[in-house]
Amino acid sequence: MAMVIGIDMMGGDFAPLETVKGVELYLSGHNIPARLLLVGDEAQLTPLLKKHKIPMNHVDVVHAPQTIGMFEHPTKALKEKPDSSISTGFKLLASNKIDAFISAGNTGAMLVGTLFSIKAMEGVIRPAISTIIPKMNGGTSLLLDVGLNADCKPEQLNQFAIMGSVYARLVLGIRKPRVGLMNVGEEEGKGNILMQGTYPLLKENKHIHFVGNVEGRDVLMDKADVMVCDGFTGNIILKMAESLFEIYQQSSVKDPYFERFNFENYGGTPVLGVPKPVIIGHGISEAKAFMNMLHLAQMMIEKSVIKKMKEELQ
Amino acid sequence: MAMVIGIDMMGGDFAPLETVKGVELYLSGHNIPARLLLVGDEAQLTPLLKKHKIPMNHVDVVHAPQTIGMFEHPTKALKEKPDSSISTGFKLLASNKIDAFISAGNTGAMLVGTLFSIKAMEGVIRPAISTIIPKMNGGTSLLLDVGLNADCKPEQLNQFAIMGSVYARLVLGIRKPRVGLMNVGEEEGKGNILMQGTYPLLKENKHIHFVGNVEGRDVLMDKADVMVCDGFTGNIILKMAESLFEIYQQSSVKDPYFERFNFENYGGTPVLGVPKPVIIGHGISEAKAFMNMLHLAQMMIEKSVIKKMKEELQ
Repeated sequence: MAMVIGIDMMGGDFAPLETVKGVELYLSGHNIPARLLLVGDEAQLTPLLKKHKIPMNHVDVVHAPQTIGMFEHPTKALKEKPDSSISTGFKLLASNKIDAFISAGNTGAMLVGTLFSIKAMEGVIRPAISTIIPKMNGGTSLLLDVGLNADCKPEQLNQFAIMGSVYARLVLGIRKPRVGLMNVGEEEGKGNILMQGTYPLLKENKHIHFVGNVEGRDVLMDKADVMVCDGFTGNIILKMAESLFEIYQQSSVKDPYFERFNFENYGGTPVLGVPKPVIIGHGISEAKAFMNMLHLAQMMIEKSVIKKMKEELQ
Repeated sequence: MAMVIGIDMMGGDFAPLETVKGVELYLSGHNIPARLLLVGDEAQLTPLLKKHKIPMNHVDVVHAPQTIGMFEHPTKALKEKPDSSISTGFKLLASNKIDAFISAGNTGAMLVGTLFSIKAMEGVIRPAISTIIPKMNGGTSLLLDVGLNADCKPEQLNQFAIMGSVYARLVLGIRKPRVGLMNVGEEEGKGNILMQGTYPLLKENKHIHFVGNVEGRDVLMDKADVMVCDGFTGNIILKMAESLFEIYQQSSVKDPYFERFNFENYGGTPVLGVPKPVIIGHGISEAKAFMNMLHLAQMMIEKSVIKKMKEELQ
């Protein structure tokens, strides 16, 4: 059975033009096993799809006349706009019409929609979102959670470590991902109550390759491939890293390392710990980012990332 | 009555040569109201003081034959080495022989020594340590706590806000310091339980100029002059900022902004919330850093920083 990926054509600052161009890029590739369900306003989409010569044997348009704005209140918007592209996408996902859902629209609505429609994977306390952090040595590491869970328990961080490891292995291609606990100080016993409680769990966890604590100074260095923390800490690190690119752009210098802090390069970030891939893009996503998100969804399905996570979490 | 500043001559990677040179620099200035008590091993100090022509009418040497190493266990070392320069310094401070104490030695021993000898100021739940963060626009902001309190209560953060404001006003010369709460999201109600509990306290606090939440992306920007958080979050931010200088040094580019992340420039950081100035320097401190620490101690005494904090905390 062919995989079907749903994409919110109205989500993001440059939609629907850039989403259509992203679909065009994706479908021009060699390996396109996926059928796409394009969710959005037909009146706006039809002429664009024609103009960009999208091969209609690969796609279906699902009409969704409403759009949730970037600054609308997530829960309220989802309730008041049942025919929005995001609401429609989650209905398709929950009823198994699509195998993955992508949007660069309202992040809050995407998160709330995920949690309310397909919910957390069985056994997962709470899903998490991750980010790619460019490392000094040219590699990348995965940081999670970066915002879904401001307050966490040690058991949650232990699950993040497993989910992050599976993702790093299957999607980032890191054979034996080193897991580090984001902390202050190097030794066991250091840190706040959360990290003191988490350390022994990670140490005992047979599903991961735990390498101990990592500190603030290690975030950009090559010390761990997966860095685990609560969503409060992770979000502050992520946003500080994002601001480095802004600072870099304003400065007169050119440096390939700081160039890699352009988070547009990374397409989108998946919600981890849910039974189907949900990928959330930056509001500023352009064609290439949408293409990357489609490839990411395809890869997550092809490599059975979620099935593997489920196994490892048991 | 003249002020007396005590300095650990044996503390830091380049002691006692660089501490002696720092004293020399300080005493060569125009405004030297302070008498210095030089705490350390007389046998090592006497020839150096002679060689650097330290004017002995301005200084006294207090013999301390033992030295606490940079990697010794703080509590154990303080107990086992009562005649170390750090132990001796705190005895002098507790018995009012000196008005301030400076060391670039074992940070942990300095913190433990502070808490056990002079203790927290009356009414202060727990002292804090702060760091200077260089801002993109050329200014500086103060971040606290950066490590003394991994877990905090809202009432502590409220006190950090007051202590930070007084310090920013009197020492950094910022007329009306804007206080920001380190958080995720801009609006009230965002964040983890700690920050949700802290926001209303800061909002009601008449002693500070609260400007709301600041996020990870604002740390290096000009949004607040005093940024308040728990010591876990602050330590991760500090160490990540410190690593920027390391990355910068390894890169081929020259940029005056990243140059300012050289934390050696800032001398030392005071422990805030204790009844007398205690200033802790980086282990890598050289002469200029020691001179800056002596000036900082002098300034804190001259401007009655601690008295002002006490008033504002009531």
